[in-house]
Parts: sequence; C-alpha cells; structure tokens
Amino acid sequence: MISQLITYLERYITLDSEEKQFLQSHILVKPIKKNQLLLWEGEVSSEFYFIIEGCIRMFYWVEGEEKTAFFYTENEFVSSYESFTKHIPARHSLQAVEDTTVAIISSEQAQAMLLKYPKFEFLARVAMEQELSVYQDIIASFITQNAEQRYQALSKSKPQLLQRIPQYQLATYLGVSPETLSRIRKRISNKKLS
Amino acid sequence: MISQLITYLERYITLDSEEKQFLQSHILVKPIKKNQLLLWEGEVSSEFYFIIEGCIRMFYWVEGEEKTAFFYTENEFVSSYESFTKHIPARHSLQAVEDTTVAIISSEQAQAMLLKYPKFEFLARVAMEQELSVYQDIIASFITQNAEQRYQALSKSKPQLLQRIPQYQLATYLGVSPETLSRIRKRISNKKLS
Repeated sequence: MISQLITYLERYITLDSEEKQFLQSHILVKPIKKNQLLLWEGEVSSEFYFIIEGCIRMFYWVEGEEKTAFFYTENEFVSSYESFTKHIPARHSLQAVEDTTVAIISSEQAQAMLLKYPKFEFLARVAMEQELSVYQDIIASFITQNAEQRYQALSKSKPQLLQRIPQYQLATYLGVSPETLSRIRKRISNKKLS
Repeated sequence: MISQLITYLERYITLDSEEKQFLQSHILVKPIKKNQLLLWEGEVSSEFYFIIEGCIRMFYWVEGEEKTAFFYTENEFVSSYESFTKHIPARHSLQAVEDTTVAIISSEQAQAMLLKYPKFEFLARVAMEQELSVYQDIIASFITQNAEQRYQALSKSKPQLLQRIPQYQLATYLGVSPETLSRIRKRISNKKLS
C-alpha cells in the first residue's frame, strides 16, 4: 500500500528502486478505527501521515464544542507542521472520521531517512507546501464564504465526502446547527430540482 | 537597514562576512507609502518582503467589502508563498497600513542567491515556516475567538498596533461594524477602570 504513496511522490521527484525499497521497508502502514484520535490538542505532534484510504478531520475545542476546520481525504498529507518541527503543543486535534488507513512517518524515521537519503528532504517540503495550501483554503473559506457556500464548495471539491461524514461533524465544519444544515441541504436539492 | 534583516536571520543561521556583503548589496530596501498595494488579489506574487518598519495587512475582497485576515509588523516576513512558488493567482491582497519600509526579495534575486549560496535555501524555509505559523494563528483565531477576544489577543500580541491602524481596518479584522468596535473598546476600558 506504500506504492500509493510512492506514486504520489513521483509526481514531484524521480525515485530509483533502492529508494523505493527503502520507503517500502521503513514506512509503517496502519489502520485507524473510526473516531480514533491521532493527535490531541495540547500534545506535541511526533509524526505525520499520508492518507491511503479514509478521512481525517482537524478540529478545535471551543468552550466544550468541536469546531471542524478541515476534512483530509485520500492522497493528502496530514501534518501539524509547527508542532512537529518546533516541538510545541498542537492547537488542534486530528481524528479519523471513518475507518482509515494511513502511512505514518515518525520524527525518528524522518531523521533516519534524511541521514541516509538527503534527497528525502523534499518529502518534508511537499508536506509543508500542502499544509500551507490547505491553510490558505481554510482561511479563504472562513473569511469569504457563508455556510451554504462552504457546503457547495465541499461538495464540489470532495463530492464523495458528503455521504461519508457524520452530519454533526459536517455541521461543526459549516458552523451551523444540525437543523440549519438540514435546511441548507433542502434548499440546495430544491434548487437542483427546479 | 539590511542589517536588521541580517540580525533577524542570524537567529537561525551563522552568516560569514561575504554572505552578509552579498545580502547588503543585493537586497533592495524600499519605502512603501501608506495605502499602497504590494499585491492585488488575482495577481501572481513575484516577490516576498521583510518588514523593517511599518505595517502591512493581508485582506480579502468579499462582495465589495474588505475582510482583513492579518496585520504584519516589524521583523516579520510577508509572503504569498503558494502564489510565489506555484505561479498561481493570489487569493488575497497586501497593502501598507502606514508608511512602511520593506526589504524586497524578488523571484529572480532569490534564484540568483540560491545559485551562488545554496545555504540561502533556509531563507525560503524560514519565510515559509513563518507563514505557516501565521496561518495557524489566523485559523485558530477565526475559529476559537469572538470579536472581543480577537481584539484582546491583538492588543496583547502587538500592543502598539491598535493605535496605528485605521479604525475601519481594525473593524474589518474583527468582523464587526465600526460602531460595534467602539462598544468593544468602551467595554474593555470600563473593565480596566473597575
């Protein structure tokens, strides 16, 4: 299943068979049960992930309520870069939305890999660039869109996802109550019918 | 004035006199007039900045209204990293809030610098890491704080700033009307007095 990660990386760089072999034998693939937490707010992140299958959400706790900032899906890196590199507590949590399979790159593995193949430095850069791009999406979305526009954008960028995530989590992403979410869904399906 | 940038960089890396000389002679320092735009939404960013003096805000246009996401001040890098590296249109604009002095690193300069001193690659990394950290701040702040908490947080992290920025820009940062901003200010100063 590491082959999926390798295929993804080869969009950015050419890997020879020795390097591929190294990744195959050193990167752990792990199933994560639905609802399992990969990182808890306040913890220091010591690994980052590449999603082979499934979905992970990033969320914040605000006065006892969850606020979802992003849903990561297949072929995306999930990192808490600042916490991982600066060894400071993460401000958000990461949780599997459904049964999920991830490739895990731990801090020690990353260091061992870089020592043997400095070329893999690009891996950190790719993960970091992806995170920057995701963060820009989150900011632009929070600042420029209302709940209905956020719903439409998500259904466009990740069409399968809306059927897969629990409704209450989707509501915390849109920043509305589950009742308002039902109304948004109804309004959109009426628009499509008319 | 490049010496201020050099002092900042030396927090991260040791520079020899040749490298310092290179920076001194290759990096342009430029005054930016109050209200001048450094980047316009939709433009491709071809340079990044280090603020020597002054303030630059990052903002979005939403249905004819400005929404401010962040105020950058002295000793901060301002980059539109994704646009700069991927040559795609920026989603936000950058504008001088007051008369400002910046060090400018253009795309061509960055390439020339890297060719001569690969060591300067860290400069891009530092700017990128800083941007990631700023983005995390923005997201956490938008998701977890209300307008009054955002005001308090800004007055704590950048105490001088509140006197320097125009009230309407501060209001677009807090996401409230100028009238509500006045009420917030009054409530906070009453709390301090009591």
